[in-house]
Amino acid sequence: LPTLKIEIEDKNISIPIRQRFQTIIKEKKSNLCLSADLTSLDEIIELSNLIGKNICMLKIHCDILTDFSMDKIQELKDVSRRLNFLLLEDRKFADIGNTVALQYTKGLFQIAEWADLVTVHVLPGEGIVQALEQAAQTINESRGCLLIAQMSSKGALTNNEDYVNGVIKCAEKYSDFVIGFISQSRLTTSDKYLHCTPGVHLTNTGDQLGQQYVTPRQAIDGRGADIVIVGRAILDSINRVKTAEAYQQECYQVYEELRKI
Amino acid sequence: LPTLKIEIEDKNISIPIRQRFQTIIKEKKSNLCLSADLTSLDEIIELSNLIGKNICMLKIHCDILTDFSMDKIQELKDVSRRLNFLLLEDRKFADIGNTVALQYTKGLFQIAEWADLVTVHVLPGEGIVQALEQAAQTINESRGCLLIAQMSSKGALTNNEDYVNGVIKCAEKYSDFVIGFISQSRLTTSDKYLHCTPGVHLTNTGDQLGQQYVTPRQAIDGRGADIVIVGRAILDSINRVKTAEAYQQECYQVYEELRKI
Repeated sequence: LPTLKIEIEDKNISIPIRQRFQTIIKEKKSNLCLSADLTSLDEIIELSNLIGKNICMLKIHCDILTDFSMDKIQELKDVSRRLNFLLLEDRKFADIGNTVALQYTKGLFQIAEWADLVTVHVLPGEGIVQALEQAAQTINESRGCLLIAQMSSKGALTNNEDYVNGVIKCAEKYSDFVIGFISQSRLTTSDKYLHCTPGVHLTNTGDQLGQQYVTPRQAIDGRGADIVIVGRAILDSINRVKTAEAYQQECYQVYEELRKI
Repeated sequence: LPTLKIEIEDKNISIPIRQRFQTIIKEKKSNLCLSADLTSLDEIIELSNLIGKNICMLKIHCDILTDFSMDKIQELKDVSRRLNFLLLEDRKFADIGNTVALQYTKGLFQIAEWADLVTVHVLPGEGIVQALEQAAQTINESRGCLLIAQMSSKGALTNNEDYVNGVIKCAEKYSDFVIGFISQSRLTTSDKYLHCTPGVHLTNTGDQLGQQYVTPRQAIDGRGADIVIVGRAILDSINRVKTAEAYQQECYQVYEELRKI
């Protein structure tokens, strides 16, 4: 068993993050990312043990967790390696290079130690991605980021051509580190960048704080998503495991049909 | 002495944050904000004991602190009340309303408990400010935020008219909670909003990660700053206390001269 663990770890370390992500999607037949916006890391660990097999990625916010510790996040990382999904810290970095490098590697969270991917706003200029990529080089595993190209909330100031073009330009310049986008529409026909679309729900249409939902089919077909990010639809369901399975099947079926995988 | 403490606390609780900020500036003759981008909260507490008298605000990043605890941040809050400066958590909130409300009040940091002010990107739409204002109402002290209108880093995507107009519109709609801007130029002639300009240094011109500096005079005169945010110029100086005093005097002198206070 120790040998097996080493093999798995080596596999994870040696494969670049973009390739690892694409392999996970195909092998597991899942393009479903669970957005686990819960305030208990214990609950997230428990949940990921149950539905880790159905997802290609788990998205969390470490700074809303009341019980965060490096030991517990290592536990979550172990689950992610065992059940083969990526960990995305949805940090939405949005500061100057010098600051984000510290936020990524230091403090109580030491995000770079455990998050395969992080989300980044290009708003401060491309120095933000340069700084994160540099900082990631101190880590002994492959790391990457998703650029936030568009947001699903009402009145988002990302929703103009200049902004999106700035994001695409940055992705092309730092394509070793940027492996995809958080987007509301397809930004490039290239399959080099994985497009991840949040705000997906089979039934609801929105909440009171500006969030707007689309269905999995709308996300993949209309909006060109590769990865479908589902949160409250699964978290608020009576049977989270069954709901996750249903979303996995629905999302991957549409994905296969449209992308001819 | 307990009575004195209660009086000070009452004073802090009863005065709205905008008025309290303006009173501090006038009473202390300081429009200097120290950007304490240090990774040790112990060091920040020690430093703020020494130069708290010279500043109107202390800007920190709680998520780069290796020794953060609620006890220690309470200590810093006590210093801020005793030496009469505001605490600004430079969080650069940049997510949808539901998420930022949790990031503001929950997790290991419980930012709303101790930060008088926080920084906010309007990028996700004005729902972000609405959510923070709502969340702040659970706190028994006056709270506010500064909107990031423009950034000093190279190639920032904030630097266009539409973006800035979106920020101003949001400030006007939520003017009870938005008390100012992080800006590189004057956005409004109204003195209702305090304009805070970072990237200020008397000698240097920039760093390797996209940061660009201006002098205090350039910040206040050319860029219309009320509050001057100084970081590395003070932190990297041989005598931090003397340097802070020099910046306080230089900044307030220019401010008095130009704004005729």
